[in-house]
Amino acid sequence: MQLFYQPDFEQNATNIVFDANESKHMFKVLRKQAGDLIKVTNGRGLLAEGKISIITQKQCIVNVSGFEFKRKKDFYIHIAISPTKSNDRFEWFLEKATEIGIDEITPILTEHSERKKLKLDRGERVIQAAMKQSLKLYKPKLNALTKLDDLLNIAKEDEKFIAHCEDSQYKKQLITSCKKQKSYLVLIGPEGDFGPQEIEKAITKNYKEVSLSEERLRTETAAIVSTHSLNICQLL
Amino acid sequence: MQLFYQPDFEQNATNIVFDANESKHMFKVLRKQAGDLIKVTNGRGLLAEGKISIITQKQCIVNVSGFEFKRKKDFYIHIAISPTKSNDRFEWFLEKATEIGIDEITPILTEHSERKKLKLDRGERVIQAAMKQSLKLYKPKLNALTKLDDLLNIAKEDEKFIAHCEDSQYKKQLITSCKKQKSYLVLIGPEGDFGPQEIEKAITKNYKEVSLSEERLRTETAAIVSTHSLNICQLL
Repeated sequence: MQLFYQPDFEQNATNIVFDANESKHMFKVLRKQAGDLIKVTNGRGLLAEGKISIITQKQCIVNVSGFEFKRKKDFYIHIAISPTKSNDRFEWFLEKATEIGIDEITPILTEHSERKKLKLDRGERVIQAAMKQSLKLYKPKLNALTKLDDLLNIAKEDEKFIAHCEDSQYKKQLITSCKKQKSYLVLIGPEGDFGPQEIEKAITKNYKEVSLSEERLRTETAAIVSTHSLNICQLL
Repeated sequence: MQLFYQPDFEQNATNIVFDANESKHMFKVLRKQAGDLIKVTNGRGLLAEGKISIITQKQCIVNVSGFEFKRKKDFYIHIAISPTKSNDRFEWFLEKATEIGIDEITPILTEHSERKKLKLDRGERVIQAAMKQSLKLYKPKLNALTKLDDLLNIAKEDEKFIAHCEDSQYKKQLITSCKKQKSYLVLIGPEGDFGPQEIEKAITKNYKEVSLSEERLRTETAAIVSTHSLNICQLL
């Protein structure tokens, strides 16, 4: 099964129309033809099945024959991460987190962040490709680069965690601190870690201090390991 | 702290001598000088501290002033994986698994494997770099490409698992199937999965069938997720 993505259709659609970019890819690279049966998701739980009626380099139209809807999971994983200097490492995190299961990603600007700017379009493409490849019907949400302070003021998740490397008697392992079927937010700092004031402020906002591993992990590895730990938590 | 690797010294060494390759890197790239204090591991639990006495492009000699020895963990993780077509994805697995914590890796040749040959030297370098970067004193062992049948005949781990995508009433989640403080072997198949006969044969050799996630994972993601699950199992 090969999955396509078109964000705009709803359950009453009779046709799904792809834009020029996606149509060209389907026509030239994937060599799709009129009459081919394909599956399309809107990235919001809806899967449509249909037959290609028209396909050119500029346009692809699918006649919809049926729908399936997948309900959301009963937990929600949001990771806020200070983007790595290397684009590759950040994009690798986006790909793997999408595969393993993540709902929302917020790149954050912290005291020791090395990247002050971030283009979202490449990251968004990585997420869409990983969603299609791993046959997901929900597209993770990628937010714009946000100041840590602003995020601390607006976050509404049930369980909030800050993963840092400072010594603290209150720090526990994430896997033993989280409860099932909740919404979660985990803050992952830059290579130079969060500053002491940042940690202090998160604690006053009821973030629990957590450790992710006995090992020293890179930023992007810490983010993946958090994502996987919260998924595993649901199975225990 | 910056960690260096020299595999040959033991706890009675007074000097550690680096080869031309590593010496050149230390001298030209890291700009180390005579008199600098450095730390060196032999990748077998031993950490030496000492002062650089001589450094040129061809040779670096360290006068050892002291040792620490770290005991092995009380569990052992061995992942056998059919290498991905893309070198990048396989090397990414080696790097991340080393960071998260792995002891042994065996690339395997299976019925649907796309890669029939594998050069070990690049993979070995990736493992060494990740070991130094994440300050580990044990270097994971990378075995040569091995036929699945041969591995099935020689594996001696306490708990052996085969992760596959076929339906099976006996399949459980890896995280709920493993016991603490054991040696583990997990078989991870190629993109086209293990063949039915391969799965059958593993079962007769007492491998338990496991699933790693509710999600469809790429080969290298499945291998990372297994490595992390077995590490997490020790914390529960």
